[in-house]
Amino acid sequence: MFEVAELGRKLTKQEFDEQSPDLHTRLLQVQRDLAGSGKSAIILVSGVEGAGKGEVVNRFNAWLDSRGIQTTAFWEETDEEAMRPRYWRFWRAMPPRGSIGIMFGSWYTRPIIDRVFNNIDEAEFDRRLQEIAEFERMLTDDGVILIKLWFHMAQEKVQKQLAADAKNHKAKLRASPYTTKFSRQFDAFMEASQHAIRSTDQGGAPWHIVEATDRHFRDLTAGSILHDSLAQQILASAQAAKAPKKRKKAAVSAEPTILDTLDLSQTLSDQDYSKKLAKWQGKLHELSWLARQKRRSVVLVFEGWDAGGKGSTIRRLTQAIDARLYKVISTAKPTDEEAAQHYLWRFWRHIPMAGNVSIYDRSWYGRVLVERVEQFAKEAEWQRAFAEINLFEKQLSEHGIIVLKFWLHLSPEEQLRRFNERKETPWKLHKITEEDWRNRDSWGAYKLAVNDMVQRTSTEFAPWHLIPGNDKKFARVEVLKIVCKALKQAL
Amino acid sequence: MFEVAELGRKLTKQEFDEQSPDLHTRLLQVQRDLAGSGKSAIILVSGVEGAGKGEVVNRFNAWLDSRGIQTTAFWEETDEEAMRPRYWRFWRAMPPRGSIGIMFGSWYTRPIIDRVFNNIDEAEFDRRLQEIAEFERMLTDDGVILIKLWFHMAQEKVQKQLAADAKNHKAKLRASPYTTKFSRQFDAFMEASQHAIRSTDQGGAPWHIVEATDRHFRDLTAGSILHDSLAQQILASAQAAKAPKKRKKAAVSAEPTILDTLDLSQTLSDQDYSKKLAKWQGKLHELSWLARQKRRSVVLVFEGWDAGGKGSTIRRLTQAIDARLYKVISTAKPTDEEAAQHYLWRFWRHIPMAGNVSIYDRSWYGRVLVERVEQFAKEAEWQRAFAEINLFEKQLSEHGIIVLKFWLHLSPEEQLRRFNERKETPWKLHKITEEDWRNRDSWGAYKLAVNDMVQRTSTEFAPWHLIPGNDKKFARVEVLKIVCKALKQAL
Repeated sequence: MFEVAELGRKLTKQEFDEQSPDLHTRLLQVQRDLAGSGKSAIILVSGVEGAGKGEVVNRFNAWLDSRGIQTTAFWEETDEEAMRPRYWRFWRAMPPRGSIGIMFGSWYTRPIIDRVFNNIDEAEFDRRLQEIAEFERMLTDDGVILIKLWFHMAQEKVQKQLAADAKNHKAKLRASPYTTKFSRQFDAFMEASQHAIRSTDQGGAPWHIVEATDRHFRDLTAGSILHDSLAQQILASAQAAKAPKKRKKAAVSAEPTILDTLDLSQTLSDQDYSKKLAKWQGKLHELSWLARQKRRSVVLVFEGWDAGGKGSTIRRLTQAIDARLYKVISTAKPTDEEAAQHYLWRFWRHIPMAGNVSIYDRSWYGRVLVERVEQFAKEAEWQRAFAEINLFEKQLSEHGIIVLKFWLHLSPEEQLRRFNERKETPWKLHKITEEDWRNRDSWGAYKLAVNDMVQRTSTEFAPWHLIPGNDKKFARVEVLKIVCKALKQAL
Repeated sequence: MFEVAELGRKLTKQEFDEQSPDLHTRLLQVQRDLAGSGKSAIILVSGVEGAGKGEVVNRFNAWLDSRGIQTTAFWEETDEEAMRPRYWRFWRAMPPRGSIGIMFGSWYTRPIIDRVFNNIDEAEFDRRLQEIAEFERMLTDDGVILIKLWFHMAQEKVQKQLAADAKNHKAKLRASPYTTKFSRQFDAFMEASQHAIRSTDQGGAPWHIVEATDRHFRDLTAGSILHDSLAQQILASAQAAKAPKKRKKAAVSAEPTILDTLDLSQTLSDQDYSKKLAKWQGKLHELSWLARQKRRSVVLVFEGWDAGGKGSTIRRLTQAIDARLYKVISTAKPTDEEAAQHYLWRFWRHIPMAGNVSIYDRSWYGRVLVERVEQFAKEAEWQRAFAEINLFEKQLSEHGIIVLKFWLHLSPEEQLRRFNERKETPWKLHKITEEDWRNRDSWGAYKLAVNDMVQRTSTEFAPWHLIPGNDKKFARVEVLKIVCKALKQAL
């Protein structure tokens, strides 16, 4: 595969100087088009050591308007990064819509290094590459223009370069711990890289291999690829936007859904409630400190009908947990920084460091619930969200995070009773809004959405628990019990 | 001082249950008022070990609407925090306007611990407390309602509690490395705390000492303080807002300013330029790697007239620095998350980790330049900004960050020539806007603002360098030279 980048192509300085101004102007133009397009671009700068990746990045910064670019270099992970799932550091560096993110090192670096130094076997390597492919598809589906550049030089050129560097004081200062190791492992590195490139060379995010021996040829080629990729995709999305949109009414289920299987008549007496609440809260207190000690995080997701008791159930949990160990994250309207990113970005933001409990009062499931029912998201968007959410939760789970999800269910009659009660209680009045009444009208559509959600996202690593909640006391104890049992099993 | 909190005050459960609903309702009301007031609130929860600070935080979370609250617990610093100035972790946790931040542990924790364990002497302790007082004044000046709670228990009660904890399995799990140390150092801890409270008990941010022996009394007292502090300050600020505003024209200087002392006739020939550029860029390359190696960060601030050559000068710097080591931060319009915070917050956000170079294309000086001249900031706001900025840069400098500031100067005639040139060059066209022409009309007001800025913020730890920039080549080499010399001296 890399033979095509060992052809010895060159440009003289004069040729470069002739062609550069035109490319410069066109890049600035396409960057302005990007700013107005609602899309963002990520440029991955990767390739062999000594190929001048840093020089290329400097050139891009000189050609483009630096105000729309952010460059991120991924060095060794910091401890804050190591205490979160692998992709967190990349989510941190995502450029907002309209701008360009240049990434120096990327999600490919770690798997390739791990493979070269035999920390992972071929099967695990393939699994990681598969994960990358899914991750990239998620980005491009969301309108990210992903430009993957690989800078190549023939082995003898690299060796010569590295040998020269080894004698050079300045180059030594910047050598990474891998530089020498790499030069010794050139073949293994090439093989793993080829494998990675081949497995992830997808339609929406193709690889571009750039011959890097001559710096004029290298920079102009990379600049042209950048321009053409941006221009093509901005044009394609502008055309797609012209296609007529049809808005259809949200589907409503006449069939019984999984929610109809719940026994809403279950209750708990006051006395039983006090006893059991104290028992399980005591256990939770202990387990949450144990989780802290073992550096295991817990993510608890609460979804449910309005007035279903999310808030009061969450309070029964937090009462039992030391205030330093938990965070309640209420999912409200995204800020403009959040709206300028993939919808999962704002949840990645709040991923807890190892050893903390994050409780989500509503969550990323908004995508397949309210956004689906109210048609804020297009059908294609919420349809693909199921797989995206599974991928997200799998990454949490693989990092050792315990993920539990609760749907607090009640009957429409009980909801009405609670709405009326809220209207009459001073400190509950703020909890009832026009929107709550409107949502009641869409009960059938929500039921269908919940059914689909549970069917498609209840996984062995992040199961849904449907809680019969007509009796709040019963529901609270039920949730506490499930959380405790899951923690006990996992710790 | 703590005697007042050893009076043995109590409330029965019945008294508590009678008074709690009313407080609950009033707290929710005042929280809603806060949301609409444009102010934010920070509650510091501090005090002796075993006073039940966690329980109080849980109570606040139960009384208030948790959607407007974020709780942050400050444990040991992470390495990302340790690689930045001390206050960074607190800036990270600032609540946006309209919301409440509960801080568990605070900027007081470290100085008190350091004093108790004799890591710092009395003079350094006072200096840190002075710094805290300035920091808090900055927050309250900006509209933050700062509620500082200290939960106190008499020594024998604490000892009893800790002795009981020591035998208790659950309590042992949550003991911090300081718990035992503290119980041994109770007197020293009390003394340092008293000293800290006394020195920072300011009008805008008073301390409230709460007797914590009885939990009903403790919670109801803390809740009442919270309510009254919020209510008073929201009211006060609403009244202040009614005072008539007068808008006066920005002052213009007739006097010669410091800018008039610059010799704008200095130039550099093409040949000299090439030679010197190469020389200093070579040095900078080496020095920036050396800084990395020594984990010293560099902050370079660029301000100057429109078309003064900021962008092209910055590029001459970045060409010399490995792309993984620098970030160019262009200061544009704040995002809504940024606008909901103190104006320095968005700059704290981007403080580099140790060993990186951050180049600011415009900066926090916007407060005393454009915001002053265009009257986006009130006079009181930009007047106090000088001291706030000095405090900010001092904190950077004390952390070992090398801070250098450049004003790129040119004559109005040269500016006009460049504006016209930009109109005629395709890849420069985007750089000239209506605003640039408008700013030209305020030349005199800006000159005065620059003069004040240099006078009041050029410090030994963060000096201003005024660069004569009619000749771009001369200016670029001058900046490179200053940066290199400063780095060489500091490293």
